[in-house]
Amino acid sequence: MIIVMRKGATQAQVNEVVERVRAAGFGVHLSQGEERTIIGAIGGDRRVLSDLNLEAAPGVERVTPISKPYKLVSRDFHPEDTVIRVGGATVGGSDLWVVAGPCSVEGRELLLESARLVRDGGAHALRAGAFKPRSSPYSFQGLGEEGLKYLAEARALTGLPVVTEVMDTRDVELVAEYADVLQIGTRNMQNFSLLKEVGRTNKPVLLKRGMSATIEEWLMAAEYVMSEGNHQVILCERGVRTFETATRNTLDLSAVVVAKSLTHLPVVVDPSHGVGKRAFVGALARAAVAAGADGILVEVHQRPDEAKSDAAQTIGPTAFHQMMHEIAAIAQVLGRRLPTPVSAHV
Amino acid sequence: MIIVMRKGATQAQVNEVVERVRAAGFGVHLSQGEERTIIGAIGGDRRVLSDLNLEAAPGVERVTPISKPYKLVSRDFHPEDTVIRVGGATVGGSDLWVVAGPCSVEGRELLLESARLVRDGGAHALRAGAFKPRSSPYSFQGLGEEGLKYLAEARALTGLPVVTEVMDTRDVELVAEYADVLQIGTRNMQNFSLLKEVGRTNKPVLLKRGMSATIEEWLMAAEYVMSEGNHQVILCERGVRTFETATRNTLDLSAVVVAKSLTHLPVVVDPSHGVGKRAFVGALARAAVAAGADGILVEVHQRPDEAKSDAAQTIGPTAFHQMMHEIAAIAQVLGRRLPTPVSAHV
Amino acid sequence: MIIVMRKGATQAQVNEVVERVRAAGFGVHLSQGEERTIIGAIGGDRRVLSDLNLEAAPGVERVTPISKPYKLVSRDFHPEDTVIRVGGATVGGSDLWVVAGPCSVEGRELLLESARLVRDGGAHALRAGAFKPRSSPYSFQGLGEEGLKYLAEARALTGLPVVTEVMDTRDVELVAEYADVLQIGTRNMQNFSLLKEVGRTNKPVLLKRGMSATIEEWLMAAEYVMSEGNHQVILCERGVRTFETATRNTLDLSAVVVAKSLTHLPVVVDPSHGVGKRAFVGALARAAVAAGADGILVEVHQRPDEAKSDAAQTIGPTAFHQMMHEIAAIAQVLGRRLPTPVSAHV
Amino acid sequence: MIIVMRKGATQAQVNEVVERVRAAGFGVHLSQGEERTIIGAIGGDRRVLSDLNLEAAPGVERVTPISKPYKLVSRDFHPEDTVIRVGGATVGGSDLWVVAGPCSVEGRELLLESARLVRDGGAHALRAGAFKPRSSPYSFQGLGEEGLKYLAEARALTGLPVVTEVMDTRDVELVAEYADVLQIGTRNMQNFSLLKEVGRTNKPVLLKRGMSATIEEWLMAAEYVMSEGNHQVILCERGVRTFETATRNTLDLSAVVVAKSLTHLPVVVDPSHGVGKRAFVGALARAAVAAGADGILVEVHQRPDEAKSDAAQTIGPTAFHQMMHEIAAIAQVLGRRLPTPVSAHV
Repeated sequence: MIIVMRKGATQAQVNEVVERVRAAGFGVHLSQGEERTIIGAIGGDRRVLSDLNLEAAPGVERVTPISKPYKLVSRDFHPEDTVIRVGGATVGGSDLWVVAGPCSVEGRELLLESARLVRDGGAHALRAGAFKPRSSPYSFQGLGEEGLKYLAEARALTGLPVVTEVMDTRDVELVAEYADVLQIGTRNMQNFSLLKEVGRTNKPVLLKRGMSATIEEWLMAAEYVMSEGNHQVILCERGVRTFETATRNTLDLSAVVVAKSLTHLPVVVDPSHGVGKRAFVGALARAAVAAGADGILVEVHQRPDEAKSDAAQTIGPTAFHQMMHEIAAIAQVLGRRLPTPVSAHV
Repeated sequence: MIIVMRKGATQAQVNEVVERVRAAGFGVHLSQGEERTIIGAIGGDRRVLSDLNLEAAPGVERVTPISKPYKLVSRDFHPEDTVIRVGGATVGGSDLWVVAGPCSVEGRELLLESARLVRDGGAHALRAGAFKPRSSPYSFQGLGEEGLKYLAEARALTGLPVVTEVMDTRDVELVAEYADVLQIGTRNMQNFSLLKEVGRTNKPVLLKRGMSATIEEWLMAAEYVMSEGNHQVILCERGVRTFETATRNTLDLSAVVVAKSLTHLPVVVDPSHGVGKRAFVGALARAAVAAGADGILVEVHQRPDEAKSDAAQTIGPTAFHQMMHEIAAIAQVLGRRLPTPVSAHV
Repeated sequence: MIIVMRKGATQAQVNEVVERVRAAGFGVHLSQGEERTIIGAIGGDRRVLSDLNLEAAPGVERVTPISKPYKLVSRDFHPEDTVIRVGGATVGGSDLWVVAGPCSVEGRELLLESARLVRDGGAHALRAGAFKPRSSPYSFQGLGEEGLKYLAEARALTGLPVVTEVMDTRDVELVAEYADVLQIGTRNMQNFSLLKEVGRTNKPVLLKRGMSATIEEWLMAAEYVMSEGNHQVILCERGVRTFETATRNTLDLSAVVVAKSLTHLPVVVDPSHGVGKRAFVGALARAAVAAGADGILVEVHQRPDEAKSDAAQTIGPTAFHQMMHEIAAIAQVLGRRLPTPVSAHV
Repeated sequence: MIIVMRKGATQAQVNEVVERVRAAGFGVHLSQGEERTIIGAIGGDRRVLSDLNLEAAPGVERVTPISKPYKLVSRDFHPEDTVIRVGGATVGGSDLWVVAGPCSVEGRELLLESARLVRDGGAHALRAGAFKPRSSPYSFQGLGEEGLKYLAEARALTGLPVVTEVMDTRDVELVAEYADVLQIGTRNMQNFSLLKEVGRTNKPVLLKRGMSATIEEWLMAAEYVMSEGNHQVILCERGVRTFETATRNTLDLSAVVVAKSLTHLPVVVDPSHGVGKRAFVGALARAAVAAGADGILVEVHQRPDEAKSDAAQTIGPTAFHQMMHEIAAIAQVLGRRLPTPVSAHV
């Protein structure tokens, strides 16, 4: 951390800062220029520095962190890629991972039909929401535990592991009983209580990027989960909020590339929420794989027009098959593989 | 709701949409132009329309809602301003409401000292966090229940009602026991489980706008609380996230003016988080009151440089007194009043 | 265009709007609901509607355009892809188009060396700025006409057509004398005088998306050029401005997909400005091609560390060759081709 | 400027950077920590540093500027407020400055009527566009020189100085002949050719903030004008582009407060474009003055519903009078004054 003192800061103010930095266990490097003094804080546990609030100390103009504020998620401390096992598949190695299914669990029959469809289409996991975060309290809120039971049945039927969202700290135990991967939605990326709670389970966590979260905040959210002991975190880019209104969100594929350079955790992409329109999902899935994403999370429905939520961005069976075909070919160009799911042999 | 069909949509597609709209209990108005057919959905309960997912129906180009998606928060259904009583003060009438205090409860002595300071300075309520949402898991996370106890003691000492944040559905009951107003933080504005839970209490809720929430989403979050039966919601603008890096957030005072035209609920402003720098807080508090805000939420500390969190944006006693003096004068220009708190006579 | 009247609008107000719409040459479709009247404007020249300012008419709540505000750029009026010829190559057909070169023309020798480098690497055109838009008046502003002469020399030497920026209406004639494609930079996307001026030349125009331009505004900027008679416009996505600070801009590949659905014009991508960091350029070039971009504009320098501007985002010869190799393979997956440039045989 | 070397940077790489910094005329301060070396560049002309492109040098992780990239606009070099004289009024001192008038010059009679209206209402200058930047090439583009002549006539009639936009370098001389203040619109804030050209005139320049310009970029644009010799620059905040769609732009009043702390130049606010809706203009004008703005630029029309452009955000005579009354009262609270215009006595 570098502390830049104001032009005209007094020697007493400089000393005061130096003492506080030393008291926190850091070495100090002083650089006294003609106009300004610059103080470097060296060694020590950089994670405590933000609690020093040096920005507010008299005479301080600016504080610039040099080290990153996260540790467990950082590639600096764990250079090789983390590979996470979900059912028979892996996430974060050379194999692509595809999670598909309807937006929400709408009913038993519909879900089982969807599960067979995505299994036959080559998906490695099934996604569907039993608890749904809806912007209106008057919209369908999901089937809750009943939905979880249908998901478990779909897994038994198809062999596909289940990815589903948990929204309430009180539901973590329940959802973890039924699900193979716990999803944290974009609106809860900084619901720190929830992050800690899933960090205490032993299930992989799929952590969606917040709608306006910086890459650093996203990694800090992963650090919350990991700091509780659960190191199986899969990051998921799903579009950020910008001024553009032609798309639901602005899918940020640079974030995939940048995140993978900063962390060893796998990064997957959700093109359905990213663009919000069915016709564009396939092209963005291809782009995501070409950028280096470790997998794709996609909304698929046997009759997308009848989906109870997110219908406009849900693709049907034909589009899903074409997408799988195309991303397999692009994976090959990059020396990766879209593996045939184990479950396909069930 | 207006449904615009694509150029070239077939008669069968038009009929299909018309039938779905009718089945949902709406009247239909058909407008067949040379190039396109436009379908108006009239009457009925507009809140169910989003579940129809007409955007995805074959032949549909675009769906434009005409009615607002919220009802209980809307001025259309409740034209006169809602006035909420908090201790001896009111929020949303002609009186301004000022909530002040340190970012977090740091300890018993410090908090009591702060409480006296803001009481003597004319605040109508005390704010301080016992549960703190911090972007790093390694930062100070608040004192929890111990902090709540100190807050209750501060209230007993000064007569000031207490505003404090709740972050976890499991803590709502506990926090509601101690606090006079339950604060929902910016990161939890779309934590729908939490919104419903505070909607089941009988305490006023201070609902901060999400970092990148539209005004409509903010009002929908208030609708969540109200739909559970708790109609005492105070909206709080605290800055939105933009490309600008010179300020912590971009304080959106238009949102105050627009929100007050759409809803009968009171709207207050938090200039501390809005701008993030101590030197600018006073000017933005003045601007907020001039724009028509019903109150100010401000971080004040007896020795701001020593605050454990948000030190850079916390003002000291002198700046607080000047701010109170200035906003009182501006309130008068607008025919409003900064009342002497009842508690000042304790 | 649909005009929604306010709840409680008077019959006189409705009549007034109807008359103004009719006077502008439109047919009218009235839809009188229980609460509101909705007026549809049908036929006529929709491009004049915005000048009616109906939003401000008494009793009007909202005006929703149905037609698009552009015509010449629209796929509705010109369904098949526009293919533009630049030197021996084409842009917008099944062939990919790669434009490469240094950020700015730094000197004669350096430029000729760069030109040979990108020619040998397989580029179809050479890019380099003679007039440079720099955020500081104290930074290197480009060599001006001298730079244009070197560009012409580089073309003579390598056979590569030249793409270069024009920033001032007074320079259009001069730049058009030397350049094969006139580039409009992101900061000038709504410099309407400049758009009209390049619209009066017969040179293809490469139109970069404004830093915070919506897709619709970008297409309207192209409409400005085309409305002056020049129909050879190549759109170029180069990243938009968001809250994210880890990348220089946020490359918006959805915009490529959406723009190509709305317009027949070719759309290329500039990953160098999009992400701003050398290490990430290749991955985003791959993603752009996978998303369906018609070409890539990339900053390449023989010794990138010594580039006078944009050094941090400029790639070297090895990275360029790898990028070409990878995008060729991805193009093939999509049934496209990265053609060997004619100039390679010079 | 501080250069942070990567973990593992070699001694040769450190030496290379040190030499380049020294060669550019800077002193060097080396700080060798356990993990990283940090290099401070001291003294010298910091404005040339960006051309060194040290970010791209081998072994460099990050470069952090300490000094500001502007000089002439900076309060560091010119601590006292700049006061600019426009006609009989001043901008930037203790007097507020109000510029009012229609969006565009629509015709002679209408303009003269407007001029009288705003003069009688207490405005200190008349605004109206003769050259109009319109997002559609098919919209009314302004009357051009004819409009300028009407503006001159309006000045002769009312004594009000004239503020009007110039959009093309070729028109600067012409517009400067007729206008008292040259306005640079938001879309041209980084049209550097135009900035330089108005910097060569002796007319005050009203520089609108770019739609997505940071405060620093806005100040750099002012530096462009000043670096050509014209030091009379008035900054104008007019709202920035965000995700919010309820308002045309998001008026950023923090920017006023921050800009005034960084520069000695006057800062005025345009609430009309800031919010885009007539009903909200008055409240935001009040807020702007309360925040410390030096003046207000507002769209006023005798019959706003008939305005040819921007009708939705243009206020009428009654709202204008109320606004003047309210901002005068708020100015007084802050120890400022809304002076009676000299022209009122003509």
